[in-house]
Amino acid sequence: MTWRHALMIDPAASGADLTDFTATFSDVDPAGPVLSLGELSAQRGDGVFESIGVVDGHPQDVTAHLERLAHSARLCDLPRPHLGQWRAAVHVVAERCPAGESVIKLVLSRGVDRGPAPTAWVTATAAPDFTRVRRDGVRVVTLDRGIDSDASARAPWLLLGAKTLSYAVNMAAIREAHRRGADDAVFVSSDGIVLEAPTASVILRFGDRFVTPEPAAGILHGTTQLSLFAFLAARGFEVGYERVSVDRLQRAESGWLVSSVRLAAPIARVDDHPIPVDAALTASFNDHLLSPRG
Amino acid sequence: MTWRHALMIDPAASGADLTDFTATFSDVDPAGPVLSLGELSAQRGDGVFESIGVVDGHPQDVTAHLERLAHSARLCDLPRPHLGQWRAAVHVVAERCPAGESVIKLVLSRGVDRGPAPTAWVTATAAPDFTRVRRDGVRVVTLDRGIDSDASARAPWLLLGAKTLSYAVNMAAIREAHRRGADDAVFVSSDGIVLEAPTASVILRFGDRFVTPEPAAGILHGTTQLSLFAFLAARGFEVGYERVSVDRLQRAESGWLVSSVRLAAPIARVDDHPIPVDAALTASFNDHLLSPRG
Repeated sequence: MTWRHALMIDPAASGADLTDFTATFSDVDPAGPVLSLGELSAQRGDGVFESIGVVDGHPQDVTAHLERLAHSARLCDLPRPHLGQWRAAVHVVAERCPAGESVIKLVLSRGVDRGPAPTAWVTATAAPDFTRVRRDGVRVVTLDRGIDSDASARAPWLLLGAKTLSYAVNMAAIREAHRRGADDAVFVSSDGIVLEAPTASVILRFGDRFVTPEPAAGILHGTTQLSLFAFLAARGFEVGYERVSVDRLQRAESGWLVSSVRLAAPIARVDDHPIPVDAALTASFNDHLLSPRG
Repeated sequence: MTWRHALMIDPAASGADLTDFTATFSDVDPAGPVLSLGELSAQRGDGVFESIGVVDGHPQDVTAHLERLAHSARLCDLPRPHLGQWRAAVHVVAERCPAGESVIKLVLSRGVDRGPAPTAWVTATAAPDFTRVRRDGVRVVTLDRGIDSDASARAPWLLLGAKTLSYAVNMAAIREAHRRGADDAVFVSSDGIVLEAPTASVILRFGDRFVTPEPAAGILHGTTQLSLFAFLAARGFEVGYERVSVDRLQRAESGWLVSSVRLAAPIARVDDHPIPVDAALTASFNDHLLSPRG
């Protein structure tokens, strides 16, 4: 299935008093030429993005994604996105999504080099089929992120908490994981603290407590992790943000990589350490994540 | 002056036995829509680039830039660029450059998401006027790069020696420098070793010895720095690659940020430490850099 939809949106046209945003959207050919070579997204990876899961036409966790888009934009000194405009664009493309799982991407670029304003677009495509990986899980390797866990606090220009378009290192880490016979990577700080996967958050179980690395260590605050923590807390489990050592990751009772489109993929192995896959709990996570949310 | 030229080049069409590459080039409107929204350069900053200075139609240091493009591509697991094809494209656009200074950019992107092949393009534009900054110099602030000086060796997936399109952090560092009342930044490793500027190499003078940070510390090997070292060595100066501490940077007899388009900009201040500007030597550097080279 190769359907795709794309809208350019004009961020500069979104006055605070605007309520009908459709005049600020324009349909474009998702496979055709749209961006100029002067685009700073393409020249510099200079912009921010979000990926939103869509189930049967319902976009999930939209508010959490829009708030993170605004947070990323602020860290990158981009003009504040008008969230009403972006929400309207998400709903326009979500309505075109067929039954099943889709993915909506939001991109806010700094625009054309020396141009007047940011460029922004929203696309919708079919999601890949993650049925197998949600059941059988992923083998991960830990990879040094080079940065210590205090770097984010002392050096905000490293943009560690922003979801920027500069993802070359994330992509290189996944290729390195494949070279090592694994499916995915988990980044670890140079002082041995678990951070995040290149495109997912990490959740670990120790007894009845579920933990995820603290966003303060310089990682994205995961929208799917937030949704699963609410799900777990409502069922009486303890949830928390912690500094997690690599050693503790390797000894987790269970673990998951969680993200908006792949959803909850159980961690089946960390480096040379097998991790038990809890099939029933994982299925309940994914049932929750596939139900209409947010 | 707002002239621009742009060529798309087809890397997949460059057979080893091809000698006339013009059929693999296509002129495109440099301000018009060219790239699709699926471009991984725009979505992920996933690709590599070079910026080549052009003086009166002569592109400078072409071989050094092409070799670095190939080096960056290798670090990013991109298909090896056919350097004959890229060289031919550089010369096609250089011939269209008017008298004065221009800049040619080469971009090799991983291509469209799930597409068959990389995307590549070459553009030429007028260079900004750097006369003042080449004479009066730049005030720089040192900014923590978060990464220690051994990270590059132990974690090649950090792509520290590759000139990737993922430059959001480099751009954020320049904005931070401006916020601090400076013109530019110099990145320093978390263990206090001088690395590079966001878009330039650092050269420092101590007596009759000129030093630049070792590329092994995880920085780009500067093409302009190489050219100036050859110039200095031919004049009997000692040149070398060293680990340079921040403290030593602040006590340099003179210093320069050097790059392909701005050329040699003397460092007039590092943090709160004034650095003497050697006007005559700087002028000889820029005379050399503006003469036809490579």
